[in-house]
Amino acid sequence: MNLPSKRLEQAVEAFSQLPGIGQKTALRLVLHLLKKDASQVNQFALAFHKLKEEIKYCKNCHNISDTEVCSICSNTRRNQEEICIVEDIRDIIAIENTQQYNGLYHVLGGLISPMEGKGPSDLQIESLVERLKNSEIKEVIMALSATMEGDTTIFYIHKKLKDFNLKITTISRGVAFGGELEYVDEVTLGRSILSRVNYQQG
Amino acid sequence: MNLPSKRLEQAVEAFSQLPGIGQKTALRLVLHLLKKDASQVNQFALAFHKLKEEIKYCKNCHNISDTEVCSICSNTRRNQEEICIVEDIRDIIAIENTQQYNGLYHVLGGLISPMEGKGPSDLQIESLVERLKNSEIKEVIMALSATMEGDTTIFYIHKKLKDFNLKITTISRGVAFGGELEYVDEVTLGRSILSRVNYQQG
Repeated sequence: MNLPSKRLEQAVEAFSQLPGIGQKTALRLVLHLLKKDASQVNQFALAFHKLKEEIKYCKNCHNISDTEVCSICSNTRRNQEEICIVEDIRDIIAIENTQQYNGLYHVLGGLISPMEGKGPSDLQIESLVERLKNSEIKEVIMALSATMEGDTTIFYIHKKLKDFNLKITTISRGVAFGGELEYVDEVTLGRSILSRVNYQQG
Repeated sequence: MNLPSKRLEQAVEAFSQLPGIGQKTALRLVLHLLKKDASQVNQFALAFHKLKEEIKYCKNCHNISDTEVCSICSNTRRNQEEICIVEDIRDIIAIENTQQYNGLYHVLGGLISPMEGKGPSDLQIESLVERLKNSEIKEVIMALSATMEGDTTIFYIHKKLKDFNLKITTISRGVAFGGELEYVDEVTLGRSILSRVNYQQG
């Protein structure tokens, strides 16, 4: 795109680096910002200034946190015997919203993905093993995406933990609640038949 | 959304002010930034720091420009007798891409919209009138959106310019090229029959 100003180009370039934002959308966003007051635009810039340096992570679970130990890890009323392995903070938010889980978390910070050049050492797997060595944890719940990357990561962690006396589970997979059968993909439907469970009255 | 860090919250808040970006997308964008180097994140912030203060506008056409007079206005090889009225810089980019127009532009910076509290005085209409007073311009082409706001703005400018000896035109409206007739909306199709033109061999 041929833009008439270097300054404008910089801002458009910055937005269009973000996932899902192309040059046209980026320009629309910049023009939206330019309609605001100068102070509001500077406020916007300030929100990202030194963001990376100032964001802190919980030393136990590696979730983003303002304190050294996050509010979930330091909450003694949570079940200290269950730990849920997730990819990132968004998964914690999603699981917390269900109000069905009251244990601890461990944030991997990604999944094993040879395609993206991400190996086990790029994730918080060693720290998970260390954490499990001296803990009361009895069950490790794998709540990772149902993708090849997710499955690979589960497999790797499972191997790492085989010498621990732990129950290792994964969240159940199958037809979504409210999902119409005819729209479910073949793989999911096939697997959900194979992994059928005894009928229980709700 | 319940976020575990104030700093994270600020960044998510900043993104979710933008049009079309909700809280979930905003969080996804922030997490994407956090995967980059600190220097890249600061570069991102810098792209918006003092953006509003530093962006300059062409004193003739009010397009965004690094120079006092933009490259289109200062290009003497462009037709100085035609001026195209547009809403914002995106329209200039779109029209320039067609390579069908070689005249000047005038950027209104919006459209008259009582719903959004935008009146004629918020737009660059007075400066257009001033500009036309001492110019060689013979034709004013209205290239505004085919919406109520666009029509209102055209009507207002048309009234303002009625004492000038100018040809005032609007870009043609009708069925889009390549458009299948059955999918065209009724208003467009109806109007395109009323404003039919003599057949010309391409």
